Amino acid sequence: MSSQLNPAYEAIGKGFVQQYYALFDDPAQRPNLINMYNTETSFMTFEGIQLQGAVKIMEKFNSLSFQRINREIITAVDSQPMFDGGVLINVLGRIQCDDDPPHAYSQIFVLKPLGASFYCQHDIFRLGIHDTA
Amino acid sequence: MSSQLNPAYEAIGKGFVQQYYALFDDPAQRPNLINMYNTETSFMTFEGIQLQGAVKIMEKFNSLSFQRINREIITAVDSQPMFDGGVLINVLGRIQCDDDPPHAYSQIFVLKPLGASFYCQHDIFRLGIHDTA
Repeated sequence: MSSQLNPAYEAIGKGFVQQYYALFDDPAQRPNLINMYNTETSFMTFEGIQLQGAVKIMEKFNSLSFQRINREIITAVDSQPMFDGGVLINVLGRIQCDDDPPHAYSQIFVLKPLGASFYCQHDIFRLGIHDTA
Repeated sequence: MSSQLNPAYEAIGKGFVQQYYALFDDPAQRPNLINMYNTETSFMTFEGIQLQGAVKIMEKFNSLSFQRINREIITAVDSQPMFDGGVLINVLGRIQCDDDPPHAYSQIFVLKPLGASFYCQHDIFRLGIHDTA
């Protein structure tokens, strides 16, 4: 089993997160996120709403009303190798949309190998509601 | 592929979280958490520290210095079915240890099927540092 573990999981995790947010945070590039997801087998849970497939996921992104995103800080990117060669990633960060107050958020990605690259099979996003104690 | 997806993923996720924290939060029961992890193939990332195997994971739990845990609130449990029959779970909550101030935390579990039950193959825990804006 363990022969499938990708020893570069940490660099893959950090690289994916950087690449993903570079696309997400630029409105002109955001439509290219569709290439990160599989047409049928990608799952996303966005603030508790279950979505399946690249089209539904992009519809959700396109429905978000903010214009500007300021990704203030990425606090932690924790990655683990998975036994199918994939990578599990947990991101904690802080985001500000338009002139809203900044919000903590958490985002989990499960990357699956696809040829020499990866696609995002699982994605869970939650804004934190813990900003004030 | 999709025939392996477990339609009960949401109940499995919520049930696991309840069972896991019932053990974790009771010092007398905490040693039983060892049964949640595989001897070799379970990964845990605890505040950025990588651990592999049930023994190392339990050593970390045993090294934690608090006595009492008050799991103030579990804000969100988001689950997704995985293509090997497993379940991906994201927990956001708030925890208080001894007389410390409460802290937001995030914990991700990847459950793998094992007979009629599941074990925890991946576990990532982070205390939130976003408690105050």
